Amino acid sequence: LDARAFLRAKRDRVTHEPDAIRQFVRACMAGEIPDYQISAWLMAVFLNGLDPAETGALTRAFAESGRTFDWSDLGVPTADKHSTGGVGDKVSLVVAPLVAACGVAVPMVAGRGLGHTGGTVDKLEAIPGFRTNLSPDAMRKQLETLGVVIVGQGPELAPADGLFYALRDVTSTVESQPLIVASIVSKKAAEGAQALIYDVKCGNGAFMRTPDAARDLAARLVENTRAVGRASAALITDMSQPLGAAIGNALEVSEAAEVLQGRGPADVRELTLELGSLMLLRSQAEPTAHEARSRLERALASGTAWQRFLSLVEAQGGDVRAVERAGGFEPAPVVRQVLAPTGGRITAMDTFGLGELSVSIGAGRTSKEQPIDPRVGLVMRARVGQRVEAGEPVAELHLDRDRDDAVDRLVRCVRIGDEPVVSPSLVLDRLD
Amino acid sequence: LDARAFLRAKRDRVTHEPDAIRQFVRACMAGEIPDYQISAWLMAVFLNGLDPAETGALTRAFAESGRTFDWSDLGVPTADKHSTGGVGDKVSLVVAPLVAACGVAVPMVAGRGLGHTGGTVDKLEAIPGFRTNLSPDAMRKQLETLGVVIVGQGPELAPADGLFYALRDVTSTVESQPLIVASIVSKKAAEGAQALIYDVKCGNGAFMRTPDAARDLAARLVENTRAVGRASAALITDMSQPLGAAIGNALEVSEAAEVLQGRGPADVRELTLELGSLMLLRSQAEPTAHEARSRLERALASGTAWQRFLSLVEAQGGDVRAVERAGGFEPAPVVRQVLAPTGGRITAMDTFGLGELSVSIGAGRTSKEQPIDPRVGLVMRARVGQRVEAGEPVAELHLDRDRDDAVDRLVRCVRIGDEPVVSPSLVLDRLD
Repeated sequence: LDARAFLRAKRDRVTHEPDAIRQFVRACMAGEIPDYQISAWLMAVFLNGLDPAETGALTRAFAESGRTFDWSDLGVPTADKHSTGGVGDKVSLVVAPLVAACGVAVPMVAGRGLGHTGGTVDKLEAIPGFRTNLSPDAMRKQLETLGVVIVGQGPELAPADGLFYALRDVTSTVESQPLIVASIVSKKAAEGAQALIYDVKCGNGAFMRTPDAARDLAARLVENTRAVGRASAALITDMSQPLGAAIGNALEVSEAAEVLQGRGPADVRELTLELGSLMLLRSQAEPTAHEARSRLERALASGTAWQRFLSLVEAQGGDVRAVERAGGFEPAPVVRQVLAPTGGRITAMDTFGLGELSVSIGAGRTSKEQPIDPRVGLVMRARVGQRVEAGEPVAELHLDRDRDDAVDRLVRCVRIGDEPVVSPSLVLDRLD
Repeated sequence: LDARAFLRAKRDRVTHEPDAIRQFVRACMAGEIPDYQISAWLMAVFLNGLDPAETGALTRAFAESGRTFDWSDLGVPTADKHSTGGVGDKVSLVVAPLVAACGVAVPMVAGRGLGHTGGTVDKLEAIPGFRTNLSPDAMRKQLETLGVVIVGQGPELAPADGLFYALRDVTSTVESQPLIVASIVSKKAAEGAQALIYDVKCGNGAFMRTPDAARDLAARLVENTRAVGRASAALITDMSQPLGAAIGNALEVSEAAEVLQGRGPADVRELTLELGSLMLLRSQAEPTAHEARSRLERALASGTAWQRFLSLVEAQGGDVRAVERAGGFEPAPVVRQVLAPTGGRITAMDTFGLGELSVSIGAGRTSKEQPIDPRVGLVMRARVGQRVEAGEPVAELHLDRDRDDAVDRLVRCVRIGDEPVVSPSLVLDRLD
């Protein structure tokens, strides 16, 4: 491969042949192409784009750069979901055992939180003893016996994406749609599930701020996932307020446990059922959305989903006592009620601000090495559109120590006014 | 300096502050910014451009990254010229001693040939003993006594340009107008002459193929040179056929010597007078173009320019016997006449092809380390628009050994037809 000619092509908006992209990624992984050429290509891609065929080729090249899983001999359908990142999103914890309880295996490779959004691996690690670094053999064994496994992403999965991402991070080329799409889909494709469902978040707590941007990303994710030979669908869902009430690791696991027992916030339950239905439908475990949803609802009502979650925790070494009853987690030392300063209607929330607040009190991290405190977080007691009286609690802060500044910050994230407000819809659009 | 924010700005077409550009170049030279960030910035500049203020700041930062000369205490005006590169262009060899003979000192830092164009340093080194690596002290002494010195560009001149150029070369970002302009002007600015005159070549033997592209580059060169505090002007000149007759190092020195003695090809003489006039005018040695030209013509006619050239050769260790009479150079072992295959009018020449042919027979190089043979080259015996009979010589090849392929290639570079042709004008436009 002539790297200079390859760069010149993208510079001049000449479409790359799929094979040229494959050769480029291979040469990069073989150390034959220096970082300064990769980064110049990334900037050219940022500014000139990649078309669907190029994005598909890049996705395949990333996926093939490391270990790839193949579950076709399991004898059951497989599915997974991916969210683009929001605040309070604990759906993965609920939907993985729920879908498994309906006969579809979920080989979930999950991430850690970074910035204002949390990560499934961090949440599960709030359960004492829970291990997320399983060997491929252990993953397979657990998938065979339980139908669900949730592990952290190791360096052996799509390592070329890791190399390219590290360079994107330092060259301000992260926010490129085709590079985002190839990065997400390559990891999910390597994970091996037959059906991949996307939850593209939209709103002031999401990376996509407008429905158009979210729809566009969703379309490219679905298109690209199909291009690499998997079934796919996507929902565009509201992130103009946190999903559910809890933000913070142990708090979110507790809320997920509530939902798995048929209780918990309506929005978490609803989004779980929506995403779970698509997982059953696209993996061809159920023929219609209606039947898929009914089956999921029965698994929640009967307790089989909840039992599957407890088995998952136990299988991965977690202390089941932490989750099997409310109050099983070690509590945060300080709990502060946050009161509405005035009466009125909640007209908006600064969702990104709430996510950043949770990071600042120790529930998340701003750099990869930072430790997190599983106990801390916040619990929202009100939602957009709801009336509150002055002095009524709008949220609860769970803190490692008393922090007046956290209370002040939270108050500033909740806007109370007089104007009429329409409660935002949970599912803004669907691509299926 | 936050390198990521700096890259993001250029990525998003946000104009850099001059000070940010200065800090970026300094940090790059200090090794604080890795190559992969510089190269991503170069690609962003290639695609999103630099405005005149940014280009000026980059030029100053490049110039200030190394040694800068200041000749203001010489007591005489100073000037230099720069050509964007053509085939057969030996004007520097003529104009430097000529202008010096008219009282304007010329501290010329010249380049070597690369690709299809030759370089002044290679041409001078065809003279046995000629040294082009003088110390700054030796340069100053020679400027004081002779008013002219021609040296090669060492790594101490605008080293940041060297660093950036090396990365442009491997990231396909060479052909960016603002980067070209900053590169050219920074080296000339560091060289210290008060007036810088550009000869922007246009045609099928030049980097700029159209008058519009050449005019645009000329305008940016002049604007940028003025922005760094020097007087400037530019000519756009024809490169749809070689300049003069000789292509090849010793052959070109001999032709330059002819012109300095008042003979030689009319186009070399004319372009020398045009560029020399601007050097005298812009360095304020002469008040009008007419007076400048008269003075140059007198210096040619009286032999003072020629004597100055001989003194220059002697001062820099060259063997004056090689140049003081025709036939002083060691000849090429083989000389082949190239005959017109048919009669007719010469309608066009593949000037780029002629340059490449000269490289292929040893007169130039395709990589920096390649040795060159000063003896070889070609001498054109016909010009565009001229009638030739079948079998009449159109060129002479000076070869290190017999090469039939070179004769064939040369024939293919000269198009002979029946249609009427207008001889191209030498000076296509002027910016002064």
